[in-house]
Amino acid sequence: MSKPKLTVGLIGYQFMGKAHSNAYRQVGRFFDLPMDVRMKTLCGRNQAGVEAAANVFGWETTANDWRKVIEDPEIDVIDIATPGNTHCEIAVAAAEAGKIVFCEKPIGNSLVEAEKIAAAVAKSGRPSLVYHNYRATPAIALAKKMIASGQLGEIFHIRAHYLQDWIIDPEFPLVWRLNRDIAGSGTLGDLAAHSIDTARYLVGEFQEVCGMLHTFIKDRPLVGEIDDKMGATPSTERGEVTVDDASIFMARLGNGTLGTFEASRFSTGRKNYNRFEINGSKGAVVFNFERMNELEYYNNEDPEGTQGFRFIQATEGHHPYAGHYWPVGHIIGYEHTFINLIADAVTALAEGREPSPNMQEGLANQRVLDAVERSHTSRGWVSL
Amino acid sequence: MSKPKLTVGLIGYQFMGKAHSNAYRQVGRFFDLPMDVRMKTLCGRNQAGVEAAANVFGWETTANDWRKVIEDPEIDVIDIATPGNTHCEIAVAAAEAGKIVFCEKPIGNSLVEAEKIAAAVAKSGRPSLVYHNYRATPAIALAKKMIASGQLGEIFHIRAHYLQDWIIDPEFPLVWRLNRDIAGSGTLGDLAAHSIDTARYLVGEFQEVCGMLHTFIKDRPLVGEIDDKMGATPSTERGEVTVDDASIFMARLGNGTLGTFEASRFSTGRKNYNRFEINGSKGAVVFNFERMNELEYYNNEDPEGTQGFRFIQATEGHHPYAGHYWPVGHIIGYEHTFINLIADAVTALAEGREPSPNMQEGLANQRVLDAVERSHTSRGWVSL
Amino acid sequence: MSKPKLTVGLIGYQFMGKAHSNAYRQVGRFFDLPMDVRMKTLCGRNQAGVEAAANVFGWETTANDWRKVIEDPEIDVIDIATPGNTHCEIAVAAAEAGKIVFCEKPIGNSLVEAEKIAAAVAKSGRPSLVYHNYRATPAIALAKKMIASGQLGEIFHIRAHYLQDWIIDPEFPLVWRLNRDIAGSGTLGDLAAHSIDTARYLVGEFQEVCGMLHTFIKDRPLVGEIDDKMGATPSTERGEVTVDDASIFMARLGNGTLGTFEASRFSTGRKNYNRFEINGSKGAVVFNFERMNELEYYNNEDPEGTQGFRFIQATEGHHPYAGHYWPVGHIIGYEHTFINLIADAVTALAEGREPSPNMQEGLANQRVLDAVERSHTSRGWVSL
Amino acid sequence: MSKPKLTVGLIGYQFMGKAHSNAYRQVGRFFDLPMDVRMKTLCGRNQAGVEAAANVFGWETTANDWRKVIEDPEIDVIDIATPGNTHCEIAVAAAEAGKIVFCEKPIGNSLVEAEKIAAAVAKSGRPSLVYHNYRATPAIALAKKMIASGQLGEIFHIRAHYLQDWIIDPEFPLVWRLNRDIAGSGTLGDLAAHSIDTARYLVGEFQEVCGMLHTFIKDRPLVGEIDDKMGATPSTERGEVTVDDASIFMARLGNGTLGTFEASRFSTGRKNYNRFEINGSKGAVVFNFERMNELEYYNNEDPEGTQGFRFIQATEGHHPYAGHYWPVGHIIGYEHTFINLIADAVTALAEGREPSPNMQEGLANQRVLDAVERSHTSRGWVSL
Repeated sequence: MSKPKLTVGLIGYQFMGKAHSNAYRQVGRFFDLPMDVRMKTLCGRNQAGVEAAANVFGWETTANDWRKVIEDPEIDVIDIATPGNTHCEIAVAAAEAGKIVFCEKPIGNSLVEAEKIAAAVAKSGRPSLVYHNYRATPAIALAKKMIASGQLGEIFHIRAHYLQDWIIDPEFPLVWRLNRDIAGSGTLGDLAAHSIDTARYLVGEFQEVCGMLHTFIKDRPLVGEIDDKMGATPSTERGEVTVDDASIFMARLGNGTLGTFEASRFSTGRKNYNRFEINGSKGAVVFNFERMNELEYYNNEDPEGTQGFRFIQATEGHHPYAGHYWPVGHIIGYEHTFINLIADAVTALAEGREPSPNMQEGLANQRVLDAVERSHTSRGWVSL
Repeated sequence: MSKPKLTVGLIGYQFMGKAHSNAYRQVGRFFDLPMDVRMKTLCGRNQAGVEAAANVFGWETTANDWRKVIEDPEIDVIDIATPGNTHCEIAVAAAEAGKIVFCEKPIGNSLVEAEKIAAAVAKSGRPSLVYHNYRATPAIALAKKMIASGQLGEIFHIRAHYLQDWIIDPEFPLVWRLNRDIAGSGTLGDLAAHSIDTARYLVGEFQEVCGMLHTFIKDRPLVGEIDDKMGATPSTERGEVTVDDASIFMARLGNGTLGTFEASRFSTGRKNYNRFEINGSKGAVVFNFERMNELEYYNNEDPEGTQGFRFIQATEGHHPYAGHYWPVGHIIGYEHTFINLIADAVTALAEGREPSPNMQEGLANQRVLDAVERSHTSRGWVSL
Repeated sequence: MSKPKLTVGLIGYQFMGKAHSNAYRQVGRFFDLPMDVRMKTLCGRNQAGVEAAANVFGWETTANDWRKVIEDPEIDVIDIATPGNTHCEIAVAAAEAGKIVFCEKPIGNSLVEAEKIAAAVAKSGRPSLVYHNYRATPAIALAKKMIASGQLGEIFHIRAHYLQDWIIDPEFPLVWRLNRDIAGSGTLGDLAAHSIDTARYLVGEFQEVCGMLHTFIKDRPLVGEIDDKMGATPSTERGEVTVDDASIFMARLGNGTLGTFEASRFSTGRKNYNRFEINGSKGAVVFNFERMNELEYYNNEDPEGTQGFRFIQATEGHHPYAGHYWPVGHIIGYEHTFINLIADAVTALAEGREPSPNMQEGLANQRVLDAVERSHTSRGWVSL
Repeated sequence: MSKPKLTVGLIGYQFMGKAHSNAYRQVGRFFDLPMDVRMKTLCGRNQAGVEAAANVFGWETTANDWRKVIEDPEIDVIDIATPGNTHCEIAVAAAEAGKIVFCEKPIGNSLVEAEKIAAAVAKSGRPSLVYHNYRATPAIALAKKMIASGQLGEIFHIRAHYLQDWIIDPEFPLVWRLNRDIAGSGTLGDLAAHSIDTARYLVGEFQEVCGMLHTFIKDRPLVGEIDDKMGATPSTERGEVTVDDASIFMARLGNGTLGTFEASRFSTGRKNYNRFEINGSKGAVVFNFERMNELEYYNNEDPEGTQGFRFIQATEGHHPYAGHYWPVGHIIGYEHTFINLIADAVTALAEGREPSPNMQEGLANQRVLDAVERSHTSRGWVSL
């Protein structure tokens, strides 16, 4: 007895394309889902590249024009894993064609674009998903459970950092992620967007922000062609860096919570340091993606004398998602956050529910990004 | 242009069967190998179970009798992922049939069995592999590279622990892993065998050992049927625990190195604490599988005042295996150690080399296990 | 042959009085100084209290009126360890009397007071010291040495947190530290002042700040009398909390460094989490006072494959201050930061140099505190 | 109203002499004791050295012959802080003179000596103290409280390491600690003795042991004169190292607990790594002296999903000893373990109780050291 199929067309085959493809391929291996995922079409402009990728990643066919993918009546889901400057056109077209839209974050390169996308999706009446994959980390899902059940009490603080160091060398080339026309922004959309989603997910909506953006290295050697950050090589010509190297902001959010946020690609020594700490009246949690299988938890109600931050290995059968994989202490990795996210999304779709987070949440995220940019310009607080 | 195929039949579909299957399925997705793996047959006694597993894990066909799998002329590799009591018969038959034998560790339930297997494989002249998957952890492979290049100097100490706590409850049932007839031993073969392999791999051969075995809980509730440790349920009848709950030994190994080894299923709080520390004249390394993406390294030749254990995230492109997965700091997990091991093995087979570690190394490992058992009985040192 | 004497009168005998007294008593036991410290007079308003303290702490005599201490011609140093509202009057009088002034931080309860003090000290031509004791932590002094020698390169970021949780209980009483009239401010002067000093010491001067202050609990039970935070007991009457429970600010400082600062008494689980991280073009350092004997250091110029944050135990003979105490790994504690600070100050005085940090540095610190307060009010950036 | 006095004569003024002196000088500053300590006589053979030390450490007078100190009728306590070869003669004479004897560990250089000392003390009927100062670490005292109250349940395992690396350089000179005639043994008495005391204190008496001793570097450059390890300088002549560089043993102790012990001066990277882990049926604790203010604690009875090792900062007012020092998170150091030990001892003496641990416990410790040495020789288990 075969299950109904969810047929996917994926636009983009670089870093995110690899992660999404792996998730589609593996999700049914670990989760007993109500639908099977059919990996039909992988789309990319370079035919040799997309064919090789399709072969490695396990897609049936390839395409060079995303419009053709949208026109394919067999395809249920259009998954957008391209750089930000292409999201709006693809997503709007997909929504207008009645497709389910899955989209990388941030959903647009500007608030205007994000609003267009969200409006088109809303108008289509179809479900959507935004790839805030970190929500589907067992330790973060555990934190969510704890906060939702009141275990942390009233939330006083969230402090979130997303720190990397891959461009501190001034001769590192001007890859597309450093080009505002393609990427929309630098650390703000690439990194802080994740922290914002975590904050919205765990604490609540943003009320106001006050922040700054900064570019340490103003120009860099050009690269011949757009490439992912791993494969870029320098040229002798130089060009202007048009995005932020670091973004910092303060915030009031949730029900009276103070937030501090910092994203940087100049935090020497930090590789993928997506860390947050939340302090509440009854307890606290700390998370760092580089040790993504662990959640630090402080219980203010532990008996006197034995209070302390404990390191929970969120790998036990009763932890969110963890029971689908390996025994306790046999950790999972980055790619599993995508598998978990897709497992939840497929289940939601099969049950007629909206996946989470959907495009409206992507829009809410973008409103915060936009407010931070405006705050940088106005050098003061901006309300949301 | 299609690659040559390596066709596999896998015997056993529980915990290890799942891990091996995933490795076969994923290895070509991350590594550009000279051969493709064809997952032909999954074998298990329970037809419903093996069929469900084959479907989920991605095998073409199933079988209930491992002899049939060995008889299949298409199959190149017989992979043995069953409990230890069945290894000898299957492995010898497979070797006699001229198959490549891949086998879970320890290769036998006794030294006699291990010798039989190794002899049969040697006689067959075919390659073999033993699943000491931890060797294929990037951080451990990095440690190997460092030690092999002399970066740690003369090795003074190795101290290795493999600690778990899943049976401290006296009402936890008598699962097959606690039955000597099936499992061969308790912590010794299940856990210490991994530490022994690490020591052999990184430091050298064992010269002599002196150890002890201990069983804290002598009898436990029976389970109705053999089950993996995750799914077992207690019964009202009780049976004798016939394996060790903890195993401890001292050793002299390598070129004058002192070793201390401890394995336990009664180390409350430890989940999969496969940890070792190696101290050499020029530096030291520390590893803990629960944080398998990290290697601690102390360089005795760092400038005065700045010496300290550093936490290397072995996730950079130039670290062993790591470049095949995700960007730095985007960690991998337990299952990837199997993928890496199989990537190496497939490459070796394609190039006409022996995979590593092979059955002779499995035998060397078993000699240490046997020596520890004899040392326990004689209450003194045993030479190897 | 006896050494010259530096005779001290100490005003205040609570928490800081205990720490200063211990430093004076112990400094000559660990450091071979050019002058001996003579602990002559301890001053406090409560005669029974001050006598008991003088006896325990090792002072020769007591006084109830600080004016009397200033009048004593034998006394060289007036050390002010009272709450902030009394600093200005005492410090100005002491400076006018030609005394050397040692003062707790922040030096005043307002910028106006701080300016008065600094002016009086400047006019007196006498040396001075401000108790930014954390500078004299071996690990921080090591960081200073590394940064000063260029080992970290150009500094991109400093992020500093000083987090505690001792008043999250809304029934915790309104102790003097929560009263603006006495304490001047809450976390800003008590905690952030330390982070500001660290930033000024390690990175450079502040150019502009943008921050916010927040009070989570607006009123609390009164206490009958002013008491130190340890001994306070609640009453049935309630009073207004007039200081900040948390203070947060962004900054530009040094030569293009971005700074983020956060101080809180509502960071559940954090006890004395005085932490900073500094990222430079060649390396990074991380410090947390709760593990004050350690400095984390990342060297961007370590060989590829072996880079990582290393934990330096700053307890070796060649580390700053450490050689005066115990062998490596035999750690020192909070009180030793005061001993080290006084050892440096006594040496400086004996050699006719100004101790560090002196009152001008205290004033520079207060300018930052003041700018943060103004930024809170103006809801925008404030230049320094 | 002055308190009764406990008058002390201290034999030895090197490393331990400094630590004991500091404890006597400081104990009354932090603890409100029923007796005052009077630091009367410091004894050492080198007159210039002992006078300088007495002046720095705060002793009233000096002596060159320990017999004179014992003859002094004012002196209540003879404190022996000299190398092990002198303990027996001094301790026996002191006991015979009716003095209270405080003695460094291990109490003798052999079991015969230890028995003589313990017998003399027993015959004298006077109290005694052995300097197992680590018992008086707040975190260890907390562990004791937890274990004694049953919080850890039945104890399965103790694994204890005391690792250092100060002699891995083969040109490090042959200081007295490497001379069996003076030091009695190497790591065994110097380091393992501490681990043994911790095990006896926290878990129970040793039943049997099986161990080994090893010397990595057999000869070293001589030093001109006996010196403490810090000040030694090499010579061109070489001499034999007559003590162990590493000592390892397995044990059965307490009520069915398995123990593993390892001490080494060749554990590269480890400075004062006095670490233990204890696993019980209800929980576990982990301690490392390099972070002596912390105790890791795993509570097996924490709610499902939130179990994990927690880091208790044993610096809160209600933790053992901690309330006498500084606020929570303001850590103490190595020297405070001696202050705490003396505070307890003085209190016990004032109340007519025996200090803890006393000479009988010192003897019990030495029995284990002796059994390990015999086990090394016999290459098998030795009962106690």
